[in-house]
Amino acid sequence: MTPDQSSLIAAVAAQFGAASVVADPQIIAPWLGDWRGRYHGASPAMLVPRTTREVAAIVALAAEHRVPLVPQGGNTSMVGGATPPADGSALLISLRRMNQIRELSGTGRSATAEAGVILQALHDAAAGAGLRFPLTLGARGTATIGGLVATNAGGTQVLRHGTMRALVMGLEAVLPDGSIYDGLAALKKDNRGYDLDQLLVGAEGTLGIVTAARLKLVPAIRDRAVAWVGLESPAVALDLLRAIDGPAIESFEILPGESLVRVLRNIPDARAPLAGSHPWHVLIEAVAAGDDDRDPRVVLTDALALGLERGWIADATIGASEAQAEAFWALRDGLSAAERAAGPAVQHDIAVAVDAMPGFLVETARAVEARFPGTHASGFGHLGDGNVHFHVRAPDGVDAAAWYRDAAPGITRFVHDAVVAAGGTISAEHGIGQMKRAELERVGPPARLGAIRAIKHALDPLGIMNPGKLVALAEPGCDQ
Amino acid sequence: MTPDQSSLIAAVAAQFGAASVVADPQIIAPWLGDWRGRYHGASPAMLVPRTTREVAAIVALAAEHRVPLVPQGGNTSMVGGATPPADGSALLISLRRMNQIRELSGTGRSATAEAGVILQALHDAAAGAGLRFPLTLGARGTATIGGLVATNAGGTQVLRHGTMRALVMGLEAVLPDGSIYDGLAALKKDNRGYDLDQLLVGAEGTLGIVTAARLKLVPAIRDRAVAWVGLESPAVALDLLRAIDGPAIESFEILPGESLVRVLRNIPDARAPLAGSHPWHVLIEAVAAGDDDRDPRVVLTDALALGLERGWIADATIGASEAQAEAFWALRDGLSAAERAAGPAVQHDIAVAVDAMPGFLVETARAVEARFPGTHASGFGHLGDGNVHFHVRAPDGVDAAAWYRDAAPGITRFVHDAVVAAGGTISAEHGIGQMKRAELERVGPPARLGAIRAIKHALDPLGIMNPGKLVALAEPGCDQ
Repeated sequence: MTPDQSSLIAAVAAQFGAASVVADPQIIAPWLGDWRGRYHGASPAMLVPRTTREVAAIVALAAEHRVPLVPQGGNTSMVGGATPPADGSALLISLRRMNQIRELSGTGRSATAEAGVILQALHDAAAGAGLRFPLTLGARGTATIGGLVATNAGGTQVLRHGTMRALVMGLEAVLPDGSIYDGLAALKKDNRGYDLDQLLVGAEGTLGIVTAARLKLVPAIRDRAVAWVGLESPAVALDLLRAIDGPAIESFEILPGESLVRVLRNIPDARAPLAGSHPWHVLIEAVAAGDDDRDPRVVLTDALALGLERGWIADATIGASEAQAEAFWALRDGLSAAERAAGPAVQHDIAVAVDAMPGFLVETARAVEARFPGTHASGFGHLGDGNVHFHVRAPDGVDAAAWYRDAAPGITRFVHDAVVAAGGTISAEHGIGQMKRAELERVGPPARLGAIRAIKHALDPLGIMNPGKLVALAEPGCDQ
Repeated sequence: MTPDQSSLIAAVAAQFGAASVVADPQIIAPWLGDWRGRYHGASPAMLVPRTTREVAAIVALAAEHRVPLVPQGGNTSMVGGATPPADGSALLISLRRMNQIRELSGTGRSATAEAGVILQALHDAAAGAGLRFPLTLGARGTATIGGLVATNAGGTQVLRHGTMRALVMGLEAVLPDGSIYDGLAALKKDNRGYDLDQLLVGAEGTLGIVTAARLKLVPAIRDRAVAWVGLESPAVALDLLRAIDGPAIESFEILPGESLVRVLRNIPDARAPLAGSHPWHVLIEAVAAGDDDRDPRVVLTDALALGLERGWIADATIGASEAQAEAFWALRDGLSAAERAAGPAVQHDIAVAVDAMPGFLVETARAVEARFPGTHASGFGHLGDGNVHFHVRAPDGVDAAAWYRDAAPGITRFVHDAVVAAGGTISAEHGIGQMKRAELERVGPPARLGAIRAIKHALDPLGIMNPGKLVALAEPGCDQ
């Protein structure tokens, strides 16, 4: 522990009590790495504030003592975004004790949740008021609102409701100088200069610590239906989506047939929704919510009839019960785990324009397999958002460690170059964190990178906010 | 003209031809002041680029020669946002020649419009494709897309479709160093760091020049109906809105009875929609669009029946024809002109939380009239957005010039203090420009102001982008 860290810890403990600092290595250990075991950091202590004022005081002290802070919620980052640097130079600051839902308004259709509120808890609270917070993802039992805001999380309902960015009505945050930015007032219009709320969404904690968010709620789902469809290609899947898209369609997820095979192998007692085998599958969810009184089963029946008539659909079924709907979703939610269980692979969370995705998916998979013989490339995910998780599996029988070290980086660069050539993004919903920082620097458009660096340097000139994530701090100086 | 300005103009003319610089004082004159005649600037020349590359070259030259630029579209700012400084230090840069709609996609429901496209032209182009760009306002025949983006414009359809911010899918802009930021790719998800699109929306040209925008389109309106309602108070108006709000309701505008009297006096042949007199009036528009097949007249009939049954509505009528619907809207659109014709007054474009607006409106009017005897205060506008245009008229018979000089600033400070006390904003949809800059500095939260100044200094260290608007440039230095 450095003298500066000791002084900071002592000051925090003096102001907020010994319980506000956790220094026991046993307790800290699980929070020093990411959940996939890729990143391993070190830190002498974790600060655990209970209020925004405590966060503000901690940040002011950190600035005074020049000690970097790594904010942490549920620690479910896919890109090492919440793992401290390995040199132990930073302290963890956990927002998990700030877990109050401060307000939930039925008429205003909003909830103000502190950073440490777990997504599932917000879902439950909204449901209790007959409403719904429409962002959801696999890690909902662990991920926190602060992290979901800081990473502009996506998930499976983005098609209808957008990413976290579209659901944030206002934020409260502690800026790197320890000042409290309060944007929680429920103003539908506010033209007082630059939109700091939107600047903080997706900033990955590099410009300040989100302490609370006022979030949009939508009408509760009264009823839902889930269909499973077998079809020939991503191109016809997109044709189908374009033809049936409407307010009732909440999810439209695509996966290749071989991924379904792996999922079925990986989940005990799982059953294939369709009898035959198909090159691609789509899961479609339709819901009834608000004053839309159409039966979602009828919506899906009509959609499937249209798709069969046009020759887009080879086979399809609608879940006969809520249990079956959940079973279909379990197959979708089991994809990541099944892909990991299938052997060494590199994943890429990428997006291109929606119309371009079917072609991109097929052609890039072919190009990767040609360029890296023995690999197997495919993608699954959010076709309606132009966002897939593009996986490249190692050739059978390779040494995993050697392949990750020697082959994987080149494959990733190849995929990213293809994405850039297609006008897309190397991070669709997972963020940059530490995993993609070098790649962002390599392929990011210079105008964008220059502006990001200038903003980072302007708001965090000491470099104390989540160091090493997203963007390298520009060299200090007046003429950066 | 300064030597630096001469050098810049010569360089632009050399690169892009003599036609790219307008120096004739007769031609420039109308563009040196704002349309309401409040602000008067000076400039030796107006640069008129035709392409983004020309804008980029001009900005790079301006940076090299340290000559500030004032970007201009339709010059319809309500806050002096496009008027150059009076000292003639800046050059105008008109985006009006960049008036191409580069792309309009039916399946993608988007249009990419250059900065100089006039709003009405975009409306027409969208209509030609069976779609609609859902932002509209009185100045639609003059205001340009670039200005509407730079000011995060609002208007009368925000209730359903949001402000410009919600309609921007991506931007192209020239940053203060002359680099081109290209965010036009239609990516529904992109987590490559800070959202520069959203940062530029509402930045009033102080961080760069918006050259094009990809904008969201929505289904065309197949049918609409407009109701005019007389009622007792803003509070019951909000009760009514809460009860009837739904996808078909696109506008909900409130005005006091005395404002209607002034409008009727100010528009030749205008007729009152209702027979009796009422303390407040509401205009409600319902539309049929997309796959919503309800008749908007039925929607409004049901809404009015509910309002009558609950005792909220004193009297109401639904326009029997499109001509009558337009006549109702003409009354609403004639409000600003009628208020101006009624004598000296100060206007305030303010917002508070929607639920708080009825009480704020009534109480603040009462407080203003008590504190400034003889004045008359009232508000009209976008109740469903929590945004009204709050007017304070001078006592009868005062000398206008003296009142504007001696009394108006104190009234504005009083109103703004009330807004701040209510947790609201002193600029809801018009921006800050030069009109509200001092007031923003006076009442703006320090954390917000500090961040805005730091970002401005970081991205425009030379202070060449729309000087004097929105925010004073921080003193140069490493430790701002």
